[in-house]
Amino acid sequence: MSYRITALAALPLAFASAGLAAQSRAQTPTLEQAADAALTGDTLAWDFVEGITTEIGPRQAGTEAEARGRAWALKWLRDKGFQRVSEEPYMMPTWVRGEERAEIVAPFAQPMHITALGSSASTGEAGLTAEVAYFPSYADLEAAPPGSLAGKIVFISHDMKPTQDGSGYGFAGPARWSGAALAASKGAVATVIRSIGTENHRTPHTGGTTFPEGVTPTPAGALSNPDADNLERMFARGKPITMKLVLTPRQLGQTASGNVVGEITGRDPKLPPVLVACHLDSWDLGTGAVDDGAGCGIVAAAAKHVEKTGRPLRTIRVLFAGAEETGLWGSKAYAAAHKGDPIHVGIESDFGADRVWRIDSNFTASNPALYKRLAQSVARFGVAPSREVATGGADLNLARESGAAIIDLQQDGTRYFDLHHTPDDTLDKVDPVQLRQNVAVWTQVVGILANEKSAIMPAR
Amino acid sequence: MSYRITALAALPLAFASAGLAAQSRAQTPTLEQAADAALTGDTLAWDFVEGITTEIGPRQAGTEAEARGRAWALKWLRDKGFQRVSEEPYMMPTWVRGEERAEIVAPFAQPMHITALGSSASTGEAGLTAEVAYFPSYADLEAAPPGSLAGKIVFISHDMKPTQDGSGYGFAGPARWSGAALAASKGAVATVIRSIGTENHRTPHTGGTTFPEGVTPTPAGALSNPDADNLERMFARGKPITMKLVLTPRQLGQTASGNVVGEITGRDPKLPPVLVACHLDSWDLGTGAVDDGAGCGIVAAAAKHVEKTGRPLRTIRVLFAGAEETGLWGSKAYAAAHKGDPIHVGIESDFGADRVWRIDSNFTASNPALYKRLAQSVARFGVAPSREVATGGADLNLARESGAAIIDLQQDGTRYFDLHHTPDDTLDKVDPVQLRQNVAVWTQVVGILANEKSAIMPAR
Repeated sequence: MSYRITALAALPLAFASAGLAAQSRAQTPTLEQAADAALTGDTLAWDFVEGITTEIGPRQAGTEAEARGRAWALKWLRDKGFQRVSEEPYMMPTWVRGEERAEIVAPFAQPMHITALGSSASTGEAGLTAEVAYFPSYADLEAAPPGSLAGKIVFISHDMKPTQDGSGYGFAGPARWSGAALAASKGAVATVIRSIGTENHRTPHTGGTTFPEGVTPTPAGALSNPDADNLERMFARGKPITMKLVLTPRQLGQTASGNVVGEITGRDPKLPPVLVACHLDSWDLGTGAVDDGAGCGIVAAAAKHVEKTGRPLRTIRVLFAGAEETGLWGSKAYAAAHKGDPIHVGIESDFGADRVWRIDSNFTASNPALYKRLAQSVARFGVAPSREVATGGADLNLARESGAAIIDLQQDGTRYFDLHHTPDDTLDKVDPVQLRQNVAVWTQVVGILANEKSAIMPAR
Repeated sequence: MSYRITALAALPLAFASAGLAAQSRAQTPTLEQAADAALTGDTLAWDFVEGITTEIGPRQAGTEAEARGRAWALKWLRDKGFQRVSEEPYMMPTWVRGEERAEIVAPFAQPMHITALGSSASTGEAGLTAEVAYFPSYADLEAAPPGSLAGKIVFISHDMKPTQDGSGYGFAGPARWSGAALAASKGAVATVIRSIGTENHRTPHTGGTTFPEGVTPTPAGALSNPDADNLERMFARGKPITMKLVLTPRQLGQTASGNVVGEITGRDPKLPPVLVACHLDSWDLGTGAVDDGAGCGIVAAAAKHVEKTGRPLRTIRVLFAGAEETGLWGSKAYAAAHKGDPIHVGIESDFGADRVWRIDSNFTASNPALYKRLAQSVARFGVAPSREVATGGADLNLARESGAAIIDLQQDGTRYFDLHHTPDDTLDKVDPVQLRQNVAVWTQVVGILANEKSAIMPAR
């Protein structure tokens, strides 16, 4: 609120008349005005996420649906007036889901809701039936002796709680990321995990798992949280439990994917650009609204709002990365293709559409004046400063590899893992009010950075 | 709270010592004490619903799973000391789900989440592809001219809002109950409806639909609410929309089902009993926790708590009805088998496990003294009186047909239709605190009724 008073006070007195509003509209807005206008009036971010979820829906990496998503996004960027819009293709290994069913065979026969994890092997159409070995946590599985799980289906449970900063993912995530490989290395024939998620719906959370060199992939899936609860209650009864799994995913080999790029060309295109990123692919189960349609809408909308304040000094480069979910293939391809192109600063939006609550950077200590200016500029949107060191989103490989400045506009992740990688990642989960707050914060920050003359990071 | 003070004040002064608690425990509790103890200490209702959801899970009418549920419930009632526990078998027509998939083929190709409605016909394995005709409401479909829907898949949408008393179901329900038949009568080849539900998850709500004599059944399914939203957004773009449906349910013909009964035999078994009912079957998608495992737990627990106060004057007859969901087959069979057995009063619990907030009866006007006594007895549990006329649950056919007294202990239904007939009907949705409030209220009410000497209803 203090900003608004200052801004009004700075206007020539002649404007403080009935004609003020009309006059102001006709003028080029200041960055502050553009950001404030976005807070209440942005329609671009919603237009993007509403459009891509309705007209394309799920767009899994390496598939024909992702290609349709790219075509849609290329047209959208051109329609909205972005410059140098293009596709940057690459090849990648693609895994696709098949049938997926789980059931307890004995002693408490009933079906369970499961989804395969990315890179899961197939059980074959006939499925796989085995006794289940229960591990309350990843640490318990680590403690199991070598060979002790021969012939077993391993069940890894745990307890993921919502956290505003998303740190619960790091705590619970290893069960998904490497649980199946760990179980397989001890002889397990398959692994089921409790979903890495914080809600209690029958919609299991997918996501990638990794089998390192030397470990033969096994079938691997996630049970929904209510099913994992039920399985735990069955184990509490002290009887051996037999499960049947049918998971028939397939590896398609190398298929085509690509990044989509566009820009708001700066007044001095030779200066390193501001890279604003998101990812265009989504897991197949939902429609990619919060992960990451909203993020692409936010970064693109912010770039357009900055443009309204006049052509920025530096180019704002928009990267809609492909194939983030299955191995950061788009980010890697972008870094490889642009190796040697210096980046002024990288920022990514890939944590849903809830409000930005904190601004982190990797130059808070080394360039405190700029960090302070940025933090103060977004305080009016309820964004707090911090001493956390920004590490950037998954699609900022180029920024990280080139030692660029990085900013994390931290979003409220309290409900993000209710939706993450589930069928429930749909448009109705995007709150238009919070989405606009994101756009306002991004507009403010990107606008400052794109007009910053000096290098942010100290020379290396 | 005023009750507690009064009760304590009535105790002989000699008991008001350190030995009070131990002495009281050894005595036969009053009904009020038993109900109060249930409020904080009941474990029976939870034991039932936790047990049947864990050890049996879904128990669809007429299937082997329902039979396992009956066997489980018979053992549970015997283990808990109910008298005259038995199964009352009957035959019924059984429909079972098959494959179910829906996708938009053009112009916005993407999968949708669908579930078949009970009595749906099959599309065949190859599925059915047709243009979709959109009706925002059931009334809009009613207004469509005869024959105008030839070859079309009808989509009926609407807007079901949560209501505490469940009245939203009556408003939105016709789309499911008779929408498919109405569409078929106008030439539609299939019908999809927006789920009759109040949440926004990708878990569509099943439930029965009816094709009357002379209307050939068509495939009929419910889309999840987010999918229905998406389809509406597609229609808002003004292009013809083509959908592919694969629904392969089957009619199995007549199969075995049954009711499970037991009782707390009264001091005068010749007096008409108090009938307390619920249903044991559930839809196949969830595990039948709130619909209606909790209800069976509540009525059985209340009967046992009343027994703790001494053998009641009248028998408390527990009816765990079979096959409610697919046509009230258990209720009809019970009414036929017990035709001519007079009933003192009937009460059913079949609206989840959230708290009782109102007591209705069908004798509020004709026997105001008894109604007032009942209402006053449960006021301390936060239950309000009303002038609504109780009509009884689905399994109270016998009570209704014999003109018996009926009480409805109205539960808070605000979130009931978030879960109703979905995969999300699981144990974690049962709040143990509210479940115990139900048991306390039921204990109080059933205890009064089972010790009531006079007939409740005026002679007919």
